[in-house]
Amino acid sequence: MDKALIDGYAVNSKDIAEADTNTPVTLKLIGEANVGNTNTFTVSAKETVKISKGAIMPENTNSVVMPEDTLTEGKKVKVFASVVTGCQVAKKAEDSKAGDVFILKQRKIRPQDIGGIIGLGYRQIKVFKKPRVTIIPTGNELVPIDIEPEPTQITSSNSYVLRGFVEQLGGIGKIASIVRDELKLVKKAVLKALEVSDMVIISGGCSTGTKDYTLRALQEIEGSKVLAHSVAMKPGGHVLLAIVNGKPVIGLPGHPVSSLTSFHVFAKPVLRKLSGDPRSFWQIAKDTPSIEAILTKNIKSPEGKEDYVRVRLRELDNGTTSAYPFTGRSSFLSTLVKSHGIIKICADCTALYEGDVVDVLLF
Amino acid sequence: MDKALIDGYAVNSKDIAEADTNTPVTLKLIGEANVGNTNTFTVSAKETVKISKGAIMPENTNSVVMPEDTLTEGKKVKVFASVVTGCQVAKKAEDSKAGDVFILKQRKIRPQDIGGIIGLGYRQIKVFKKPRVTIIPTGNELVPIDIEPEPTQITSSNSYVLRGFVEQLGGIGKIASIVRDELKLVKKAVLKALEVSDMVIISGGCSTGTKDYTLRALQEIEGSKVLAHSVAMKPGGHVLLAIVNGKPVIGLPGHPVSSLTSFHVFAKPVLRKLSGDPRSFWQIAKDTPSIEAILTKNIKSPEGKEDYVRVRLRELDNGTTSAYPFTGRSSFLSTLVKSHGIIKICADCTALYEGDVVDVLLF
Repeated sequence: MDKALIDGYAVNSKDIAEADTNTPVTLKLIGEANVGNTNTFTVSAKETVKISKGAIMPENTNSVVMPEDTLTEGKKVKVFASVVTGCQVAKKAEDSKAGDVFILKQRKIRPQDIGGIIGLGYRQIKVFKKPRVTIIPTGNELVPIDIEPEPTQITSSNSYVLRGFVEQLGGIGKIASIVRDELKLVKKAVLKALEVSDMVIISGGCSTGTKDYTLRALQEIEGSKVLAHSVAMKPGGHVLLAIVNGKPVIGLPGHPVSSLTSFHVFAKPVLRKLSGDPRSFWQIAKDTPSIEAILTKNIKSPEGKEDYVRVRLRELDNGTTSAYPFTGRSSFLSTLVKSHGIIKICADCTALYEGDVVDVLLF
Repeated sequence: MDKALIDGYAVNSKDIAEADTNTPVTLKLIGEANVGNTNTFTVSAKETVKISKGAIMPENTNSVVMPEDTLTEGKKVKVFASVVTGCQVAKKAEDSKAGDVFILKQRKIRPQDIGGIIGLGYRQIKVFKKPRVTIIPTGNELVPIDIEPEPTQITSSNSYVLRGFVEQLGGIGKIASIVRDELKLVKKAVLKALEVSDMVIISGGCSTGTKDYTLRALQEIEGSKVLAHSVAMKPGGHVLLAIVNGKPVIGLPGHPVSSLTSFHVFAKPVLRKLSGDPRSFWQIAKDTPSIEAILTKNIKSPEGKEDYVRVRLRELDNGTTSAYPFTGRSSFLSTLVKSHGIIKICADCTALYEGDVVDVLLF
């Protein structure tokens, strides 16, 4: 059924074809059509029905005239303007046709898409399962957040940061108990996590020190394939990428800044893939908002390594944005908090200079 | 306690001040310091300790030499490069000082901020309560989603769209039962919702038709103050803004596109305010990602009204993005699904032209 798109008068456009400001056409008002009414009108020549937005168009009408183009006196409506046929009318089924692609597979469903889906008559759709990600904190120095650390101990915090990002990306993050630096224990914890997870993240133990067991643990697990160990990036080069029976396992460095950077570069794309891989450029643009800014300081960058530098942004009076790079030591947790985004310096670029315009990924 | 930032050799920088590739300095290796060790070493002149990243620096050392600058033979370590004092060492409490502002009030807490908060020793922080928003669908034509609509009926869907947006913005969205177009019922539903909510959204009944009771219902509620009814925008001009005893009440038009547009313009800022009002420009940039695109069609826009036009984006081969505007009738739910963003045309602008560069807010 056709419906009115505005409040006004339902007419047959032919009846008022000659109407204008100086020579109005007078129609006879025969009733009022409201939303939800089931008694529909049939209109004869030179007749009209007052109609509400959303109400069903009376028979023999095809257009709606706006109230401001009319003057009503009792049962007479003077119309001062002609309309195009179909004006302000929603034709039945005009909204979508059989065979139309309405929503492409793998689109991340937005609130407005839910409206469209309901409108089309669907009550259930298949969606990707939220990936379950277990995060395993490792390290003899770590204590849980509810234990007061001794001077040589550190409160385990990376896993909370990682869980936050996992959930931001649509996953379900579970933090496992802290695992001590022992080959057997690390291996056991990874096996246990794989049983209940779609992806496993091991925090710490990914370097090449004598106490770093993540690589060895993974090598000993049946069906595991280590794809990379250490990559040419800074910070966060000590990353470990593996697949165990089809499930991604990622080892991240223990240092907070390195951990976050490696997660950003390697774990985020894997998680996006697991939760449905939004392929559209506009969805990627929406998920990774960035801002152009002007560097306030020179940055040296190691040749042959991708370099990720945290920056703090400031809005300048002239409408531009400045980016102050934190080039200090990577352990400073406070720079993570103080920074607003990250810039990537390509492997073959060895320096950026004060005044350079950089693209800052907000994170 | 100072800690090593890399795996290497803990030294006193004075001992190796003269070291270079041709004239290495030989140090005596007296032990190994690992993370979590409590027995700390005391180093004498020309001595060194092998140290793991994160381990406590031995007494009398101040810097860490990278392994690649050394050659170890049994208990002798040859150092081929000098270091700056403090190199690769994290000084105790260097990460933050008393009196520092660590996180500004009203920042939206990011995952990395959680790491910083835990690192500083906090286990609890005060945050804004998630605003509870009740959405009231009104209209005689509406049926719930689990009822098959008659030809004159429409499945209630706007409230699901609105709830999606409320939750995206950090609120808790509750959908009330559908309310028929009766003054008494609308008023009752609003009063009931106000009892349990921080904000109320009424969907539909905000126009000036005979069946539109939202305005009258609000006028009859004690303590209510209507701030605006109908604004100069398109679509979505029939919006109603009110405050009832300090709580925001927003009436939105029933048409899907109008509803979404009014929500975007009026309800979003209110919700952001209720959930903590992130004041920083970079947070706003992050929350409202936009993209530059080139219009593919002329758009006429009514003078004196802000115009919001949905656009569909396409990535072009030359790296630019095109924006196809949906200028058709506002009832088309499918254009909400097909569009990727929205452009705003100011009240005093009456047209945009094919080829114009526009700023598209992704939504």
